[in-house]
Amino acid sequence: MSEPTASPTAPADGPRVRLALFQGRAEPLDLAANLAILDEAAREARAAGAELLLTPELFATGYAPELIRESVSAEAAADLDRDLAGIAARHDIALVYSVPGPGPEDDRAITSALVDRTGRVLARYAKSHLFGAEERANFRPGSAPPPVVEFLGLKVALIICYDVEFPEVVRDAALHGATLVLVPTALTTGFENVARVLVPARALENSVTLAYANHVGAEAGLDLAGASVIVGPDGSILTDAARTTGLSYATVTAPTSEVDYLADRRPELYRSWSDASHDRLGRPE
Amino acid sequence: MSEPTASPTAPADGPRVRLALFQGRAEPLDLAANLAILDEAAREARAAGAELLLTPELFATGYAPELIRESVSAEAAADLDRDLAGIAARHDIALVYSVPGPGPEDDRAITSALVDRTGRVLARYAKSHLFGAEERANFRPGSAPPPVVEFLGLKVALIICYDVEFPEVVRDAALHGATLVLVPTALTTGFENVARVLVPARALENSVTLAYANHVGAEAGLDLAGASVIVGPDGSILTDAARTTGLSYATVTAPTSEVDYLADRRPELYRSWSDASHDRLGRPE
Repeated sequence: MSEPTASPTAPADGPRVRLALFQGRAEPLDLAANLAILDEAAREARAAGAELLLTPELFATGYAPELIRESVSAEAAADLDRDLAGIAARHDIALVYSVPGPGPEDDRAITSALVDRTGRVLARYAKSHLFGAEERANFRPGSAPPPVVEFLGLKVALIICYDVEFPEVVRDAALHGATLVLVPTALTTGFENVARVLVPARALENSVTLAYANHVGAEAGLDLAGASVIVGPDGSILTDAARTTGLSYATVTAPTSEVDYLADRRPELYRSWSDASHDRLGRPE
Repeated sequence: MSEPTASPTAPADGPRVRLALFQGRAEPLDLAANLAILDEAAREARAAGAELLLTPELFATGYAPELIRESVSAEAAADLDRDLAGIAARHDIALVYSVPGPGPEDDRAITSALVDRTGRVLARYAKSHLFGAEERANFRPGSAPPPVVEFLGLKVALIICYDVEFPEVVRDAALHGATLVLVPTALTTGFENVARVLVPARALENSVTLAYANHVGAEAGLDLAGASVIVGPDGSILTDAARTTGLSYATVTAPTSEVDYLADRRPELYRSWSDASHDRLGRPE
């Protein structure tokens, strides 16, 4: 498979990370089967030279919020977390995975973690924007900001699924230095514009590379859309997994950008504008 | 020309505005010639049944910031403003136009105005995000928020060009009720992703219709990109003028949306996140 470079104009001696993205179908509640799929994906990605593998939201359990609350105990979730870190260590590849977070079954978040190639946790994140009635009935929203951590010379941020649809979230990560944003997701058919419109915009408006890894196919009565993408900091879609199962690859570098959106922001205005007392008729200046 | 409807699922008895968008090439500093082009566009749009015509940034002067400061006096700019309102009244069509704002030549903003079909000013706006060295050397940035005003039953907001590339700006307009955002612009070739990626994202993430009217062709040493678009609240591009000269049309209704992004925002988090004292390593919750 060809391996596009996210920032072809980046200096040759800057950081370069070979990123793999896995898209596939999970079997709801068959944790062993799903772990085996992720184990094989990690093996294959490492064999292809990847240093970091991004996987979909709640892949090890399947994307099934109600079934997870009913059937995946706190102990089972903790075991999953260990097993996934073990996959990273076994295959010598950094991994982003997503699991039900710690805590009792009826009061836990949807989380993701970045572990290094030894399985050590570099960052954890709890999804702050839950989507729809089923997620809200079965998980609680996180409130901590997206973590931004150093990884092989890049600044990597974690967010999850619906979070990316809010420009405020990716902006926050970019303002805190992120240059690569990793997004496990579970996007159903009919919402492909999230992957094709919103995700490229988040990359372009923040000059970041963004990878968005989805499930594909039927899980627990839902049709997951696929359409996993890796998008460069100019908003171009570098890889689009469409409805396929398997791995996509891109080489990610520190972005260089023609337009410096972060410097050109006017945050003092945005704060003053949010004050509803402003005259919305506008006045000539 | 076909006339797509921005919100096909809107109730049949809701407000409907027939919008026209003009794309063309202006002749820098030939005010009479440019006014004649806009007059003819207004006549043609009205004859086609349009109720509102959106025109590009600084079309009556041509997009040439330095030449404008040097050669378009405060008196000439005030005359232009009157002449453009007169075009609206003469052709019985509401108009959004863009002119150098009031004030001395070396201290004025790039502005736009919405006038009704009698030529009465409904809203004015001063561009708050100037693009590049030439604009910054020859205009001062505005600081007032995007105006949001009632027009034929819709809530219409005005912003200009580079403003739209900042999610904070359109978000502010949407949070203040805007359902139609009108954007005169001057976008050069090489930046088409603004029209094709960022503009659709602004519409989708705020559930608004957005119209983005550009120049096309050579003006004062620049190659203006065309690519004017009208985008529906689902992020779909309804019309794309590509490199053509002339009018595009769409019928705009109050949007209905499957996802309520504005309600699902978590502004209290965004405020707390902007506090740099947060631990960016993330913690399990």
